[in-house]
Amino acid sequence: MSSKTIIGIKNIAAGVLNKIMKKKTPSLKMPIRSLHNVRYDPKDGYFELAGKMKERTLTASTVKTFAQSLKVMSLSKELIETSDIATKREAYYVSKNWGDARFNEQPESDTIMDDVEAMMMVNREQIGFIPEEKGGDIAGRLVVIDKDQDSGKEIRIDCTKFGSGAYSIPSAVEELKFETKAKFILAIETAGMFQRLVKHNYWKKADCILVSMGGVPTRACRRFIRRLSDENKLPVYVFTDGDFYGYMNIYRTLKVGSGNAAHINQYFCVPDAKFIGITPEDITEYKLPTHPMKDVDIKRGKDAIKNDPFVHHHKEWQKAIKQQIALKKRAEQQALAKWGLNFVISDYLPQKLKNPKKWLP
Amino acid sequence: MSSKTIIGIKNIAAGVLNKIMKKKTPSLKMPIRSLHNVRYDPKDGYFELAGKMKERTLTASTVKTFAQSLKVMSLSKELIETSDIATKREAYYVSKNWGDARFNEQPESDTIMDDVEAMMMVNREQIGFIPEEKGGDIAGRLVVIDKDQDSGKEIRIDCTKFGSGAYSIPSAVEELKFETKAKFILAIETAGMFQRLVKHNYWKKADCILVSMGGVPTRACRRFIRRLSDENKLPVYVFTDGDFYGYMNIYRTLKVGSGNAAHINQYFCVPDAKFIGITPEDITEYKLPTHPMKDVDIKRGKDAIKNDPFVHHHKEWQKAIKQQIALKKRAEQQALAKWGLNFVISDYLPQKLKNPKKWLP
Repeated sequence: MSSKTIIGIKNIAAGVLNKIMKKKTPSLKMPIRSLHNVRYDPKDGYFELAGKMKERTLTASTVKTFAQSLKVMSLSKELIETSDIATKREAYYVSKNWGDARFNEQPESDTIMDDVEAMMMVNREQIGFIPEEKGGDIAGRLVVIDKDQDSGKEIRIDCTKFGSGAYSIPSAVEELKFETKAKFILAIETAGMFQRLVKHNYWKKADCILVSMGGVPTRACRRFIRRLSDENKLPVYVFTDGDFYGYMNIYRTLKVGSGNAAHINQYFCVPDAKFIGITPEDITEYKLPTHPMKDVDIKRGKDAIKNDPFVHHHKEWQKAIKQQIALKKRAEQQALAKWGLNFVISDYLPQKLKNPKKWLP
Repeated sequence: MSSKTIIGIKNIAAGVLNKIMKKKTPSLKMPIRSLHNVRYDPKDGYFELAGKMKERTLTASTVKTFAQSLKVMSLSKELIETSDIATKREAYYVSKNWGDARFNEQPESDTIMDDVEAMMMVNREQIGFIPEEKGGDIAGRLVVIDKDQDSGKEIRIDCTKFGSGAYSIPSAVEELKFETKAKFILAIETAGMFQRLVKHNYWKKADCILVSMGGVPTRACRRFIRRLSDENKLPVYVFTDGDFYGYMNIYRTLKVGSGNAAHINQYFCVPDAKFIGITPEDITEYKLPTHPMKDVDIKRGKDAIKNDPFVHHHKEWQKAIKQQIALKKRAEQQALAKWGLNFVISDYLPQKLKNPKKWLP
C-alpha cells in the first residue's frame, strides 16, 4: 500500500513538472467532497463518491493553495519513506517552516490534507497522517501482530493476557496483522460495560473479541474493526444504549460511515454489522428503568426517519424509531443491572445472540 | 485493604444494630465534604480534610437516606466479597429493586456513595465502585502484574511488547502490582504526542514509562501513576501544552488533587510530580508558533494567582503565569514540530530532563 501511494504521489508530481517544462499550466485533479457527489447503494453498504471531479489549476489566485498541496504531498511522501507519522496538528506546525507556503490556521491545512487524501483515493492514515485522538480498547481471543520500530521484528500481542486491563488500539492500524479463532466481534458503547465483560472474562465464555468504543468510535477504532472483521470473516455485533445517539451516531456511523467524509467511508464502514443493543422492545420486555426523552431527542428520531438514507433503506429501523418516539423513553445498557449486575452476561447477551429476530439490521 | 474495609462496614453496621437493640436512635458519622473543611499543608502536598464531622441520625425525615446508606454499604460489602465491581451508574440501577429505598435520580446515589466513601476514609474503587470512564495508556519499561479472574493465576503484562499500541489502564487499579527498572514516569497530555514517543520507542532511549493522559487524567490514571511512583520511588514528569488548562486542570489536578474531593486526594495526588511541559520561557526561547489567548483564558490565569492555594505556595508558578499573561499567547506541545517532527525527541525532552532549573514545581 505504501509503495503504491508513493508511486501515485510521484506520478502526480511528474505530471505537474511535465506541464511546467512544456510551459503549460499545471493542474491537480481531485473528487468533489460533498453530499451532492455521493451515492448510496445498499448492496455496497456505504455512501460512495459519485464521480464528479474538481481541478485545481495553477493561477495567480491559486498559487498558494497549489504550492501547499504539493508541499503536503511531499511531507506525506517523506512520512511513508521514513515510516514516520504526523497528526494533522503536527503537519500544520511543520508548515511554519515552509516560508510563504505556511498555513495560517489549522483548518486550512486540514482541508488540503483532505484534498490530498481524496486525490490519492486513500484514507489519510495510509499517507502517514494519524488522528489526534486514540480510542478503542480490545480484550479477548485475538493476537495482534505489530512490529518493533527499531528492529523490524514481529511483535505478537495476545489480547487474552491483559487481565482487567486491555490492549489500546494505536492511532494508525494499517500495518497490523491479526490471528484469531474467535466467533465474533462485540463492539460496546461504554467503557463501564466493557470493563464488566472483561472483569468476568465474557470473551472466554462467548469465544469472542470485545471492543470498547467509548462513545462514537474513533477512526482508528472503526478501521481496526473493519480490517479485523474483513480479514477474518468475523460478524460484528454492536451493543449500545437504547437511544437515538446509540442507534445513529454510534451504530450507523460504524456500519455505513458518515455523510461528510464519503471518500473514506469505504475504508471505515462495517457494512455487515448487526445491532444487538437495547431496543424499544427490550425496554418493555425487560421492564428496564428508563429516562424520559427530551423534545430534542424526539426531533432527532423524526429527522432520521425523514432524512437519513440508511433509515430509508431499513423498515425495521423506521419501526423501531417510531416505537421509541411513541414510548418517549430511552434506556441505557447499564439499566440491565436492575436484574442483577451480571444479568447482562447470564441472560441478556446469550438471549440476544441466539435470536437473530431480535437484532436490528 | 478489602478485608479491612469489610471489617469497617461490619463495625458500622454492628453499631447501628446495637443501638436499635437497645431501643436507642442509631446514627452514621462521616466527615463533612466541603472546601470549608479542608487544610493545605505543602509538606503533605495535597488538600486534606480538617476533621469536622457530620452525623446522620435516624429520624422520620432521614429514614430513606439512612436506609439507602446502609443498602449502599451492603452492596459494597457484596462487591468486595465476590470480587465484583460496579460503576456508579450500575449501582443506581441496582437500587431499582430496593423497594422504597430505591434512588430516583443518579445524583442521589452518587451523593450517598461519596458519603460512604468518606465514612470509610477510602476511595470508592476500594469499596468496589469503579468510574464510568477508563482512560490512560501505558508503554515502556514496566511489567504490570494482574490476575486472571477465573483461575486467580498471576498475569504478567510487559508494556515493552505492544509495538505501536499500548496497555490500557483498567478502571480499578487497586489490585495491580508493578515491576520496573525505569528511571522515571513521563505523563503526557495528548494522545498524539504519546503516539509519537511510542512510535519512536522513546521509552527505550530514555529508560522510562510513558503515560498518555488524554487531557485531564481520569481517576484510574491518577491512581495508577500515584501507586506506580510511590511503590517504585519513581519521579513523575508531566508534559503538557503551554496554557492554563495544561498547568492547572491537568498538572495541578494530578499533583495535588482538586478542591471538591478532598477526602480522596490523598489516594490520587502525586505530590512529587514536576512540570516539564511548555513554559512561557520555552515559547520565547524555542520561537514556538502560538495561539492568542482569549480574555477568558487570561481571566483563568488571574484567578489562579488570586485564589489557588497551590499557586499561592509556589512563587515560580506565580511568575510563570504572570509572564504568560503578559505574552497573551499559548503554545501546544505539538508546536515543537516547527523544528522537525522529532525535535521533541532529539532536543526538547533531553534538554528539559537534564536541566531541573527549567522545571516548574
